[in-house]
Amino acid sequence: MKTIKIALLGIGNVGGGTAEILYNHKDKFKSITGKELEISHVLVRDLKKNRNSSFQDKMIFTDSMEEILNSSVDIVVEALGGIEPASTYMIESMKAGKHVVSANKAAIAANFPLLSKVAEENNVEFLYEASVAGGIPILTAINDPLQSNNITEVMGILNGTTNYILSKMTDENLDYDVVLKSAQDMGFAEADPTADVEGSDVANKLSILIALSFGSYISPDLISTKGISHITMKEILEAKEQNKKIKLIGYAKKSSETEAVEAYVKPMTFTSEHPLYSVNNEFNAVYVKGDSVGELMFYGKGAGPLPTGSAVVGDIIKIAQKI
Amino acid sequence: MKTIKIALLGIGNVGGGTAEILYNHKDKFKSITGKELEISHVLVRDLKKNRNSSFQDKMIFTDSMEEILNSSVDIVVEALGGIEPASTYMIESMKAGKHVVSANKAAIAANFPLLSKVAEENNVEFLYEASVAGGIPILTAINDPLQSNNITEVMGILNGTTNYILSKMTDENLDYDVVLKSAQDMGFAEADPTADVEGSDVANKLSILIALSFGSYISPDLISTKGISHITMKEILEAKEQNKKIKLIGYAKKSSETEAVEAYVKPMTFTSEHPLYSVNNEFNAVYVKGDSVGELMFYGKGAGPLPTGSAVVGDIIKIAQKI
Repeated sequence: MKTIKIALLGIGNVGGGTAEILYNHKDKFKSITGKELEISHVLVRDLKKNRNSSFQDKMIFTDSMEEILNSSVDIVVEALGGIEPASTYMIESMKAGKHVVSANKAAIAANFPLLSKVAEENNVEFLYEASVAGGIPILTAINDPLQSNNITEVMGILNGTTNYILSKMTDENLDYDVVLKSAQDMGFAEADPTADVEGSDVANKLSILIALSFGSYISPDLISTKGISHITMKEILEAKEQNKKIKLIGYAKKSSETEAVEAYVKPMTFTSEHPLYSVNNEFNAVYVKGDSVGELMFYGKGAGPLPTGSAVVGDIIKIAQKI
Repeated sequence: MKTIKIALLGIGNVGGGTAEILYNHKDKFKSITGKELEISHVLVRDLKKNRNSSFQDKMIFTDSMEEILNSSVDIVVEALGGIEPASTYMIESMKAGKHVVSANKAAIAANFPLLSKVAEENNVEFLYEASVAGGIPILTAINDPLQSNNITEVMGILNGTTNYILSKMTDENLDYDVVLKSAQDMGFAEADPTADVEGSDVANKLSILIALSFGSYISPDLISTKGISHITMKEILEAKEQNKKIKLIGYAKKSSETEAVEAYVKPMTFTSEHPLYSVNNEFNAVYVKGDSVGELMFYGKGAGPLPTGSAVVGDIIKIAQKI
């Protein structure tokens, strides 16, 4: 039986969730793919950091990307986050003939055309289902079954932290600052919450959705982006009085006549008749309109070790089935 | 450039929608698959029936399944509905080395093990995304990205007619009989609505979902099934007073300990906090729980020529890309 060797770049939230799923479902994945899926290398910054985990026995921990590039690893899972060195590592991996799976929306959105080109030139798979809306298999849906459609519109609740904050403000009549503070205390929001609350995280994910849905790349820097830090209790209450909820939305539409793409990130209000209304707390949802299928919505968890790991492992299995 | 020849069995709602999408997106599909997708044959019951449509010029209309089996057709699209002769035609097609795409939940649910076995024995593709929840790509999600999970629970609003009737009863305080009659007048409900309103259509779809989610086949006849014809205005109003809605649900759960599957079809109530609450009118939704990904929901149109055709054509493209 062939063994597929996997290198994890980073073993934090996403890398840890991926390792846990691969370890716990070992036999199932062997029977699906006909291959042994083995994490052979883990790239870490600090080799001295103590890591106790039952499934890390056989892995080689290294702080050298060079060692991974020169190894017989088949699939590199990039779970570092941030644009660099992640983008460089992905490109080097593909040039070394390795398939790449990534959960990194910032790196992919910043370098989408380059990463896609390098993957094609080196004839390797480059999959990144986990980069948009975590566990929701939206990119597979757009790339595969929805190829039968011209997609005309795509929008969604793409950030769990801001959806959690807005849900708490709405449900418990609490001010933005109070909810943000408690979300930080519970680990739901980062110490520096800027990328989440000012919308740039959503702009990254929207840029990837636009590239796949419309076949045209728009850099996240060029997407008009407004976050939620300015939203007042008065606005929340006004919406509630009209039985509406405010959600932070990434929105894009392609004109059927000119093919021009309109895209923005901003807070929008929805009534209970709209399917995005019931998407609360840390949940994400992506709404897609196709010329044949009409409206579709995909709902689920956009973050967390296991939901994100679920998408990463889905990509790993797809590659293992091909090679 | 290779031409993929397609035979449509039936050119009603589903067959017609499929033909329309294939015709209108001809160039797009050529560039995706690198092949020409051509409807070469159409099986009809009555050859004398007048059919005017711009895209039917090159198709051979026939009332002989034999002619299609002996032709060079690559993919047979079964859009007849009903268990027979659809099941026999699918089996004969696969034995003749043809790939099969079907939208027919009744035939697939009744003969799932046999159809899957014949497809495997003859090394042909057998795809049926359209058979459950129409345009929603739920079967692809279960078969492909969600392989990384053990699915523990699957449920959904799987019938548009009954969801439309329940929505109208709720929104407009109208009795069941009144709404059914108006749905029939508008063509939303069949003259004989039994399969829809008594739940057997949902049981068929649930049987297919169980087979793919849990890997075990339960005949739809064995699924405890209760429809909506007994639901009174009093029950609807009681639910509304508690801010709840009644939905007809197909539900299945697999015990993680015994692996036993529990399954039923019956009306259930949901509060506005549940994502199924906002699934109204003719819309469908499928809710899936995986051990890694947690809760997911997929929402969209479960019927209609174009949504169903979207799923059929998605399957055709997948096969065309492989052969």
